[in-house]
Amino acid sequence: MEDLLRRLISGEIKLRNLDSELGDSNAAADVRLAFLERLTGVDLEPLRRVRLDFNKLVGWNIENPVGEVSVPVGVVGPLRVEGDYARGTFYPLLATTEGALVASVNRGATTITMAGGAKAKVLRDGMARAPAFVAPNAARAAELAEWAVQNTDQLAEWVREVTRHGRLKRVQPLQAGRTVFLRLVFETGDAMGMNMVTLSADRIVRGIAELFPDVDPVALSGNVCSDKKAAAVNWITGRGKTVVAEAFIPGGLVRKRLKTTPERLVEVSWRKNQLGSSVAGTLGGFNANVANVVAAMFIAYGQDPAQVVESSTGITTVERWEDGVYVSLTLPSLEVGTVGGGTRLPYARAALEALGCAGGGDPPGSNARKFAEIVAATALAGELSLLASLAEGSLARSHAKLGRGGAPRGGR
Amino acid sequence: MEDLLRRLISGEIKLRNLDSELGDSNAAADVRLAFLERLTGVDLEPLRRVRLDFNKLVGWNIENPVGEVSVPVGVVGPLRVEGDYARGTFYPLLATTEGALVASVNRGATTITMAGGAKAKVLRDGMARAPAFVAPNAARAAELAEWAVQNTDQLAEWVREVTRHGRLKRVQPLQAGRTVFLRLVFETGDAMGMNMVTLSADRIVRGIAELFPDVDPVALSGNVCSDKKAAAVNWITGRGKTVVAEAFIPGGLVRKRLKTTPERLVEVSWRKNQLGSSVAGTLGGFNANVANVVAAMFIAYGQDPAQVVESSTGITTVERWEDGVYVSLTLPSLEVGTVGGGTRLPYARAALEALGCAGGGDPPGSNARKFAEIVAATALAGELSLLASLAEGSLARSHAKLGRGGAPRGGR
Amino acid sequence: MEDLLRRLISGEIKLRNLDSELGDSNAAADVRLAFLERLTGVDLEPLRRVRLDFNKLVGWNIENPVGEVSVPVGVVGPLRVEGDYARGTFYPLLATTEGALVASVNRGATTITMAGGAKAKVLRDGMARAPAFVAPNAARAAELAEWAVQNTDQLAEWVREVTRHGRLKRVQPLQAGRTVFLRLVFETGDAMGMNMVTLSADRIVRGIAELFPDVDPVALSGNVCSDKKAAAVNWITGRGKTVVAEAFIPGGLVRKRLKTTPERLVEVSWRKNQLGSSVAGTLGGFNANVANVVAAMFIAYGQDPAQVVESSTGITTVERWEDGVYVSLTLPSLEVGTVGGGTRLPYARAALEALGCAGGGDPPGSNARKFAEIVAATALAGELSLLASLAEGSLARSHAKLGRGGAPRGGR
Amino acid sequence: MEDLLRRLISGEIKLRNLDSELGDSNAAADVRLAFLERLTGVDLEPLRRVRLDFNKLVGWNIENPVGEVSVPVGVVGPLRVEGDYARGTFYPLLATTEGALVASVNRGATTITMAGGAKAKVLRDGMARAPAFVAPNAARAAELAEWAVQNTDQLAEWVREVTRHGRLKRVQPLQAGRTVFLRLVFETGDAMGMNMVTLSADRIVRGIAELFPDVDPVALSGNVCSDKKAAAVNWITGRGKTVVAEAFIPGGLVRKRLKTTPERLVEVSWRKNQLGSSVAGTLGGFNANVANVVAAMFIAYGQDPAQVVESSTGITTVERWEDGVYVSLTLPSLEVGTVGGGTRLPYARAALEALGCAGGGDPPGSNARKFAEIVAATALAGELSLLASLAEGSLARSHAKLGRGGAPRGGR
Repeated sequence: MEDLLRRLISGEIKLRNLDSELGDSNAAADVRLAFLERLTGVDLEPLRRVRLDFNKLVGWNIENPVGEVSVPVGVVGPLRVEGDYARGTFYPLLATTEGALVASVNRGATTITMAGGAKAKVLRDGMARAPAFVAPNAARAAELAEWAVQNTDQLAEWVREVTRHGRLKRVQPLQAGRTVFLRLVFETGDAMGMNMVTLSADRIVRGIAELFPDVDPVALSGNVCSDKKAAAVNWITGRGKTVVAEAFIPGGLVRKRLKTTPERLVEVSWRKNQLGSSVAGTLGGFNANVANVVAAMFIAYGQDPAQVVESSTGITTVERWEDGVYVSLTLPSLEVGTVGGGTRLPYARAALEALGCAGGGDPPGSNARKFAEIVAATALAGELSLLASLAEGSLARSHAKLGRGGAPRGGR
Repeated sequence: MEDLLRRLISGEIKLRNLDSELGDSNAAADVRLAFLERLTGVDLEPLRRVRLDFNKLVGWNIENPVGEVSVPVGVVGPLRVEGDYARGTFYPLLATTEGALVASVNRGATTITMAGGAKAKVLRDGMARAPAFVAPNAARAAELAEWAVQNTDQLAEWVREVTRHGRLKRVQPLQAGRTVFLRLVFETGDAMGMNMVTLSADRIVRGIAELFPDVDPVALSGNVCSDKKAAAVNWITGRGKTVVAEAFIPGGLVRKRLKTTPERLVEVSWRKNQLGSSVAGTLGGFNANVANVVAAMFIAYGQDPAQVVESSTGITTVERWEDGVYVSLTLPSLEVGTVGGGTRLPYARAALEALGCAGGGDPPGSNARKFAEIVAATALAGELSLLASLAEGSLARSHAKLGRGGAPRGGR
Repeated sequence: MEDLLRRLISGEIKLRNLDSELGDSNAAADVRLAFLERLTGVDLEPLRRVRLDFNKLVGWNIENPVGEVSVPVGVVGPLRVEGDYARGTFYPLLATTEGALVASVNRGATTITMAGGAKAKVLRDGMARAPAFVAPNAARAAELAEWAVQNTDQLAEWVREVTRHGRLKRVQPLQAGRTVFLRLVFETGDAMGMNMVTLSADRIVRGIAELFPDVDPVALSGNVCSDKKAAAVNWITGRGKTVVAEAFIPGGLVRKRLKTTPERLVEVSWRKNQLGSSVAGTLGGFNANVANVVAAMFIAYGQDPAQVVESSTGITTVERWEDGVYVSLTLPSLEVGTVGGGTRLPYARAALEALGCAGGGDPPGSNARKFAEIVAATALAGELSLLASLAEGSLARSHAKLGRGGAPRGGR
Repeated sequence: MEDLLRRLISGEIKLRNLDSELGDSNAAADVRLAFLERLTGVDLEPLRRVRLDFNKLVGWNIENPVGEVSVPVGVVGPLRVEGDYARGTFYPLLATTEGALVASVNRGATTITMAGGAKAKVLRDGMARAPAFVAPNAARAAELAEWAVQNTDQLAEWVREVTRHGRLKRVQPLQAGRTVFLRLVFETGDAMGMNMVTLSADRIVRGIAELFPDVDPVALSGNVCSDKKAAAVNWITGRGKTVVAEAFIPGGLVRKRLKTTPERLVEVSWRKNQLGSSVAGTLGGFNANVANVVAAMFIAYGQDPAQVVESSTGITTVERWEDGVYVSLTLPSLEVGTVGGGTRLPYARAALEALGCAGGGDPPGSNARKFAEIVAATALAGELSLLASLAEGSLARSHAKLGRGGAPRGGR
């Protein structure tokens, strides 16, 4: 160890070469941690690997590993969901360090369950990647776009060369001057699919480069995809799953469980989620706190937390209905998967199994859609409860109690 | 245990009452996990608590705990930063399951360091909360807005009653009809500050409610804040820290380390980050993959991952300069803190300490700003490397190698 | 007259009944003007009708006419255009009161012509109307959406009942909770088409209302159209014509005619049209002053000036190319027509005739597309010249000269 | 004439030189028209000058004049307005060729008047211009920004050198990398002010260029202004006047005059203006048809029609209140003036006089604000009536009647 540390400090070996140097990524992680401790004089024990096996992760999920962080996980439920794929009662897990979040979502979930459950439905499904091409002029760019749309079958055949799981569904060209972006939309089965669509897009780019030698394939991703950005193209045409969840909450439950009235819930939601968000100039943020739930579930279930950006865009509505409220949440671009990426991690796989949607589904895509429906229903529960907290004026009280031994918001 | 499980299943006791029932949140977590295992028949061992002490976390950071997830952490660096607060060489940590991310950022970081380092600077600093008020008419709403701006001192005094750390900086009113949103902007020292500003806003709302009895304080948060949403109000006026990072990379380094040319880097960045993002209709997503770095650092350092949404908005520029490129990244609303929230977790505190910015800074706010500068510089490194991968056409190759034993992107 | 004025003032008759009362809309207009003069004591002679025949306009283009305004019209050109429809040299007319605008566009137009002309191309064509429907729940709303997409032929048949000129091209459903918007996209030949698509949408709404009696057709236009609003749905999927215009300007011309250098033009355009617009948080305003040209041509040619809002969204690019610059302008939603609406006015018809695109084209739609190409090329000329003024620092000088006898900007 | 035409066709003289050649801009206009007639073989009589005196307009409002277009003008009213500046009953004029528009707005106006009138209020006032500067690095750009904010007095003094009417109110810096945009906000009295602020900004740019010789003042307008573009910076911080108009319409009037119910009006407005606009991804288009009214009034009153783009952004709300509805319209960036620009035209001056707000007001700015309040109230009338048409299902009927002799929408 000392020798290694000395060589690291002197620059004789690089941090990134330790895996091959030692032939063991777990040992390499320990050395890196020791190196950082030596350099900074800080005890990094809380980051030390205790559970992960980096030999199974390096090259798949991480490089230069030093250790792991242990994010707390809370459970909410029972949450009854009646979806096309998710049918039954679930106990979703949230990995978070934000006090009161789990308690609040839990209140929403149990209230929805008492009310008969949430309905959920996947409206659209498709992962996109949009390479950019520069043609000599706009007409030539338009020609390429037209060709790609007309020859989607040819493009799809290329895709089949590089993946068994992805399938090209359609080509959506968007042009600015002589630059044209081919937004390629794929079915990706149960995978979130970014890796798959990147490889597929690369194959298509190479195919096009051969046929259109005068066109410069300037970037495999031209930001019209749009990955990990709030973008109108996702908001309008979807990316990943477009999911809607809804529930009817009778007035009695609103008063008893949510400590407010249907009228007030409607009022708060419309002033905040519609009027406030419009005033703020949001792109897709017409909701109360979807990002909290999406982020917490993404971490717990091995999804990509950077995709919280577009996965949390959505519209929450609360409408007066008979003696209660109709609440809905629509998420146009929820990007989730149950195979590949972070779902390979043992905790994520176990968590997905507990929801009954780990791994590849039968038919393909059904597990990912089931998971999407559950996420949407859980986020709906979060919306309902937070809006109620605002309506009853208890939000600040729950904040005030945080860390002072009191029961947090919704934690009755 | 069996008895508890029976009572949980029968509904005799609730999951959320286990902490008080058992007087031990760690035991409660074990029972909840066993309950979920019983219900689902799934082995949830990978989620079991091994490190966290829930007795220190419940009521602060989590409720209904069941266990923990272990997210892999990789290191990048050395990254030389010359900021107003961050000065020196750092080894930032990224908690992620996205293969090739750490390797790619690492390539960018070391390249920047070879080039002399990145400069970084906090341009603005302030956390916002915007309660919504409904007045009898627009004139009255305007009166309230005017009063609040004129009497910011009075409001600031109210704030001092509830917090020692937060300080009201200004009131920014935004009105639609008879609804007015008072966007309250605070200095929050080294805390990210959401809790503090919520309590402060609540005090202000109560004060106003007394003085303006005809005005309905309809929601403590009216979405003009805007928290965890892509919103123009954050993009234009900032939220948290507005930070800029920049570096000059000589042409030689571009060619040798990034395997491309200055011209090509400029071309790719402009087609993708400017043209592509414009075509996609983004709000603030004029960059390549800032969200990846921000999300990975937010998880590693105990920040709020749901705030990746607005914290990852930003503009990347690559400009031709002499025989090299000038690269910059501007993040208008990077929301970070070094005290409170998730930074209480042992791993987060240790990680922050290794950067030299754990806990409260001297002067107050300096640690949070130092951390912000490091995040911006690391994200800049990520931009540089990913753009180079696109420019040299290696992005797909790195994807193809994932999990097949090959060195991932940038991992040379 | 006196008697009529007395009765108007007493409220005995209404302003809007004068046409039928007098049986002559021209006389009615004179009475209204006299009424306003009496009421206000202001001489309204400059507004008096001198040219229009209101008997031909009331019920088509105006109600309650009082007179007319005379907007000055200037000419620019020659402008050489090489489009799919517009081929040749044109002298576009601009109706404007903004000093220096015509001179500036003129400079751009003649420069482009000297450089060989602008190319132009219509990339997409279709006018949209989006009625809103409220279903009992989200699943039912999705059912309606699915049905509409599957039965586009049936919908198209309904459309044929009410119009010979419009043709339904496709149905694009967008849903939020239990509300679904069916964005109906039509071919409208040479008409801009709002009237036609509104009638067609109404027929479709009635047809759907019969088949889906549980669905409430809440609004014939649900703002997802989106008419006269800056909206992502137009930006991404187009409305009216998506047109691109481009030109190559040799360095010699840039220096001699535009008084600047290719390098400087590129620099100014990128800092302003890309960076500045991104910083400003624009939706589609990645250009210098397209709205000026579009508004001036819309008024001169009888288009709908309220549609300047979305018709002026667009991206201008200036790229270094050999010893010159490549400039392009892409307008995703340019809404124009050559029949119906304001093109019925004598001046508009004459102006369109002078461009060779008045009335219905052969084949249908060709005149409107020709006009769209000319508008785009003229707007490109405006971009080029204004950017040059900024680059050479003469913009303020031209402003300073306004009204002081000097030659305005570009007017050398 | 023949000789001139010959020389024009041969290119011996240029169209733009005719004014000086002939010493008479009216004669020059006639020659240009004849030239176009000769070239195209089209009779352009309907465009011939009959009213304007180009000798008074060239160099101020137009160049290369050929003639004029006669846009029909209709009147609506009485419209009772109770504003801070506009107090009384008005008859606004709309210049439009869109059938049914005047009738519809008229219905709204008279209904509002019967209900006691609309209240209106200017909430903010300031015209902006944002020059762009490129510094050697971000720190230097920040230095310039900081300096400009700290030395606003110095900047204001420079402004006083070039204008007596404009006054610099504040400097709002926005930065991206090493580019900084100084958004300069001015009081411009009764002028819309673009000319004034451009000259003032130029003076400031020159002043800064001297003090910061290492900074490149790359563009006098850097698009962060943002002029004639839908941009968040205008939406959030305002440009021109921020105005709100509101009215309460008793249920009886809703039923009798608007042929619908309060409930239905609320429902239609929320589904369309809030939900639909959110789904469409609008920036600021949370209204039904504000652009129609703004465009028609801008043309009638000599405003800049290209500024309809941002002047028509706004939020319409309809709220249930007692036995009626509260309606409001908030326009954050209504750009109007009563002196300069197009208000110099005889018709515009007369029209403004009839409203009692022609020329400079006392105190300065009061006339422009009065006009702004009237525009907002008129647009509110348009919103009310169009929403009612949608609610009662008559929109398509009114379209169907257009040009077929029937009374158009609202024309009862």
